[in-house]
Amino acid sequence: MNKVEVIHTPALLPLYSLNDKVVVVIDILRATTTMCVAFNTGVNKILPVASPDECLMFKEFDFIIAAERNAEKVPGFDMGNSPFEYENPFLAGKNIAFTTTNGTKAIKMAKAMNPNCILIGSFLNITALCNRIKESGKDLVLLCSGWKDKYNLEDTLFAGAVIHQQLSSAYEMHDDAALSAYFLFEQHQHDLEAVVRKSSHAKRFTLLHLQTDDVKFCLQQDTITLVPEMEGEFLVNKTATQIAG
Amino acid sequence: MNKVEVIHTPALLPLYSLNDKVVVVIDILRATTTMCVAFNTGVNKILPVASPDECLMFKEFDFIIAAERNAEKVPGFDMGNSPFEYENPFLAGKNIAFTTTNGTKAIKMAKAMNPNCILIGSFLNITALCNRIKESGKDLVLLCSGWKDKYNLEDTLFAGAVIHQQLSSAYEMHDDAALSAYFLFEQHQHDLEAVVRKSSHAKRFTLLHLQTDDVKFCLQQDTITLVPEMEGEFLVNKTATQIAG
Repeated sequence: MNKVEVIHTPALLPLYSLNDKVVVVIDILRATTTMCVAFNTGVNKILPVASPDECLMFKEFDFIIAAERNAEKVPGFDMGNSPFEYENPFLAGKNIAFTTTNGTKAIKMAKAMNPNCILIGSFLNITALCNRIKESGKDLVLLCSGWKDKYNLEDTLFAGAVIHQQLSSAYEMHDDAALSAYFLFEQHQHDLEAVVRKSSHAKRFTLLHLQTDDVKFCLQQDTITLVPEMEGEFLVNKTATQIAG
Repeated sequence: MNKVEVIHTPALLPLYSLNDKVVVVIDILRATTTMCVAFNTGVNKILPVASPDECLMFKEFDFIIAAERNAEKVPGFDMGNSPFEYENPFLAGKNIAFTTTNGTKAIKMAKAMNPNCILIGSFLNITALCNRIKESGKDLVLLCSGWKDKYNLEDTLFAGAVIHQQLSSAYEMHDDAALSAYFLFEQHQHDLEAVVRKSSHAKRFTLLHLQTDDVKFCLQQDTITLVPEMEGEFLVNKTATQIAG
């Protein structure tokens, strides 16, 4: 039986081996949700980069540049990190260099530890994601991006959803972090939105007076059937018919 | 209103400030439970030390030496880490140098960060502990010792119990880790033992064929009314009538 581990924050990554495992990077509010939306709109490639300064250097290479820090778009960039921005059909076929506070950092840390593959998860593509995981036949690590290396509620809830809804019969929960995520989702599966609105990140959104209801958007389930995946340094949609860039 | 934060493992301590806060160190299975039992038996002082080698050096200074690694007593030491061992009346008035896999490490890490005070928590002394916390009028950090820097279930359940049973009206849950601990205890308050028996540490005990039922013992509530506390390098029971050593 394959094993599933949950890592609550990237700060705990050094305690784990990712060797030959499938790693799912989770940043529900909002980076990994936004990445799923971007590929669904037809984006060609996303390059996760560490900092806004590094991201800016890709401007001259015909990338759209996107940067978010502390839940806000960084001034001077083409785009921020709200999933609504990435529904714009203008983005079809484009390449995006992307940096966010937590999600792109988690992707780059996982990449450096040579896993079997890195997949991008969100409630929007949860069933497609779980099918891809089950096809792999590999042990699984659910890596929560957290908030500045601290634990967050919404990423752990999603890790719990993956195990509870989809994998509990085929995967053994290998550690207490997986058990705890499973319990958290079990308890709140019927009031997800209410619970996520209590989270510190949802409160951060309220303080910023976001124009769009990103929390509600990010909790939609199975609106997208693709699974973004790392290929070299890039995120791609392997199932897409290639669109000319 | 005072704030309460929960830290799931000592590996995340560097992300927090403990300045002027009350810190409760939690290692339910079993170090902090055992410490409460030891003082209840009449132990004079406990010196938390980092390693078995360092612990051994206190033998010549008339300390009882106690060491546990990987849930087992280290060969050559007077005592291990089962709370049952510390009910022996022979220990009254004695001083113990103590090292365990997780709990004593968490205490020493917290001590190095200059909090207002460090208290020792367990289900056995939970009400006395919470009264002491409320008297302090300080912000609170509940520091889970975890297992080798990873998250564990029983310490987080106890953190949730402290907030849920005792502090929810007087303390603001400052972060998602506190919310999550609260939810975990809320969900499992009526089947604590069953849940803790699912934890990885309880399974470790089963593999070791412990002679005593340490899990059941460590989940007893309010059998002890004292609160061990750091004073300099030592844990002491400030409320005890001093017993000649």
